[in-house]
Amino acid sequence: MWRATVLTLYPELFPGPLNASILGRGAADGHWTLDTVNIRDFSDNKYGSVDDTPAGGGAGLVMRADILAAAIDSAPRNDRPILCLSPRGKPLTQARARSLSQGPGLIALCGRFEGIDERIFEARGVEEVSIGDFVLAGGEIAAMALIEACVRLIPGVLGSASSLGEESFEDGLLEYPQYTRPREFEGRAIPDVLLSGDHKKIAEWRQKMAEEITRTRRPDLFEGFSSNGPIRRDNNKEPKR
Amino acid sequence: MWRATVLTLYPELFPGPLNASILGRGAADGHWTLDTVNIRDFSDNKYGSVDDTPAGGGAGLVMRADILAAAIDSAPRNDRPILCLSPRGKPLTQARARSLSQGPGLIALCGRFEGIDERIFEARGVEEVSIGDFVLAGGEIAAMALIEACVRLIPGVLGSASSLGEESFEDGLLEYPQYTRPREFEGRAIPDVLLSGDHKKIAEWRQKMAEEITRTRRPDLFEGFSSNGPIRRDNNKEPKR
Repeated sequence: MWRATVLTLYPELFPGPLNASILGRGAADGHWTLDTVNIRDFSDNKYGSVDDTPAGGGAGLVMRADILAAAIDSAPRNDRPILCLSPRGKPLTQARARSLSQGPGLIALCGRFEGIDERIFEARGVEEVSIGDFVLAGGEIAAMALIEACVRLIPGVLGSASSLGEESFEDGLLEYPQYTRPREFEGRAIPDVLLSGDHKKIAEWRQKMAEEITRTRRPDLFEGFSSNGPIRRDNNKEPKR
Repeated sequence: MWRATVLTLYPELFPGPLNASILGRGAADGHWTLDTVNIRDFSDNKYGSVDDTPAGGGAGLVMRADILAAAIDSAPRNDRPILCLSPRGKPLTQARARSLSQGPGLIALCGRFEGIDERIFEARGVEEVSIGDFVLAGGEIAAMALIEACVRLIPGVLGSASSLGEESFEDGLLEYPQYTRPREFEGRAIPDVLLSGDHKKIAEWRQKMAEEITRTRRPDLFEGFSSNGPIRRDNNKEPKR
């Protein structure tokens, strides 16, 4: 079973939002599981502290490598990658989430304070992963995003296997616009083509809109799409946030 | 007071992780507040449904524009932007989080299912915002990331005002490496320069390392840094995930 182990100073936050909806059902159905390690349990002092002042000076506190190592070593490894959520990390992509979803799971290390002692990365093969170019108060919410992105790709979690082949980003494009009833909303109509019943025209319109939206909103993504050439785009789309 | 209103089908997930640590203290101290609107309360049918099948066909369900409009209209606007978390959106940046933190707050719209009816964006001036190039099961965890990134920048929330001027990304660079006790960890020593007591050398080393890490890990960010030229980098750093 796919397993996430989260190393955190706030184990009470988990599973939290990861227990909602399809992810909660997926856990109940045995598709994945989550456990936590409280880093504070590995403190070596009566105050329960896990951090110390930065070498070389500066504000705040840095999480100690020796304590993090003990916390990491307490988690069963089972060939799972150890990922530290950090804005210094490699940006998470849909392709990476898919690759992680096909493995045994992951160990997520959540930093707090000023950061964590650099030596832990090499000493335990910890890889830094970023969910975006912004700073959070800690790694916990970022770990939730990472885990949610992976778990919904585990076969069986989404329910409909038919929607698992055509992901956003996997064909290099953002989503085309979606519409539903009512046919007219505050004077705004559903585009005629979508009501035409002509499946070929609908597919062409969606492809054109997806390309147009990607080109205008994310020229960086569109460049990759253009150079790879168009990929078959199906009408079955996955849920998206 | 800075205010976040979250429109969601899962109001019970909030504040959840946003109540931990400095953000929870910040709310208790009156620096910010969070409320939720349950989109399902605006269903027009006895089943409580808020979605319908996609116009033009395809798998899954699309959230209805008329129901979302009613939910949005129920929230006090107070000049707050309405942001819909979506991978189609403009990528969230630290600069945007800072700008949002200096305003009255935000209204976050969390999609579920296949997506939401496109007409709501124009009809209510909803802006799509993305936390990264990956797909989640819903907008809730992404909304938490957005809100956390903003709230920690509200004056008073982090406690030490001294750390508020020098953000990751605001000088265009990723963080330099941090170290703390023990001096030697599994044969790995803290770099000598950090123990030298020479503040000028330490600042230079940190600047050099930040540039080196940014250049090798994120050439896209480094390009922006190089063309803007170096900015003064202080040793006081904010907490990071």
